[in-house]
Amino acid sequence: MGQKEVTADPRAVELLQSTLIGQLGYHGLDGYPRVLPVWFEYSDSEILIGSKAGLYKGRALARDSRASLAVSTNDRPYHIVVVVADATVEVLREADRIPFVTALAHRYLGPEGGDDYIAGWIKGGHPGDGELIRLRPRSINFYLS
Amino acid sequence: MGQKEVTADPRAVELLQSTLIGQLGYHGLDGYPRVLPVWFEYSDSEILIGSKAGLYKGRALARDSRASLAVSTNDRPYHIVVVVADATVEVLREADRIPFVTALAHRYLGPEGGDDYIAGWIKGGHPGDGELIRLRPRSINFYLS
Repeated sequence: MGQKEVTADPRAVELLQSTLIGQLGYHGLDGYPRVLPVWFEYSDSEILIGSKAGLYKGRALARDSRASLAVSTNDRPYHIVVVVADATVEVLREADRIPFVTALAHRYLGPEGGDDYIAGWIKGGHPGDGELIRLRPRSINFYLS
Repeated sequence: MGQKEVTADPRAVELLQSTLIGQLGYHGLDGYPRVLPVWFEYSDSEILIGSKAGLYKGRALARDSRASLAVSTNDRPYHIVVVVADATVEVLREADRIPFVTALAHRYLGPEGGDDYIAGWIKGGHPGDGELIRLRPRSINFYLS
């Protein structure tokens, strides 16, 4: 890969592998920061997020690749991981998008909820191409609060 | 105040008045975005966040006041509010800090949990001065996802 891998606290990795929703931070097109909850997959030290094509977050990240992702537990003591990363926005072809979104839906909603979600999402088997937002971590910090 | 008030969807206001944790977005000192979960109070159309003095988020927001706060539910259909705001970082005197943090702790942890938290936090009655991060919304957008 030619890329330096960032070492993460095992508790940070646990959060990134949990089914907690991620909070994606990026620079909006107006220069103000934005935060948006996202489903994500943590795989091979990268964070992968799916999106419809042409949405605001993808356009903003294509212009300014600097990104952040936070994941935290809902109860005290709060376990918090903050990832700072460089993002790329890639075309996610329908043939790859279907299994990617299906796996995410099952991860976040469970087998039944995931199936229900996909049934509504897949639009007769042809949801079309989408976007993959790939975050390559520069740092991964763990906090207890 | 001389400041324009932003009109918010009632569902956005409901989220801002709930006990869901906020996700504060800001520009880090390295130019990368940051996201951090925070307790907050929504009062008089402003978002108020307490902090120890001199922490990274306060220093970063004092240098670049552009901020964002997202709040979202944990289950589908996700209710999401994204606030874009200008921040000020102010000294929060101990005499004001104690009731502010006490109210937040009770809000987020309930009466008993809040009391336990304050007992550990108050350091013999003198936690010292802190910081108040005040967000003045420029826009408040509501999403269903």
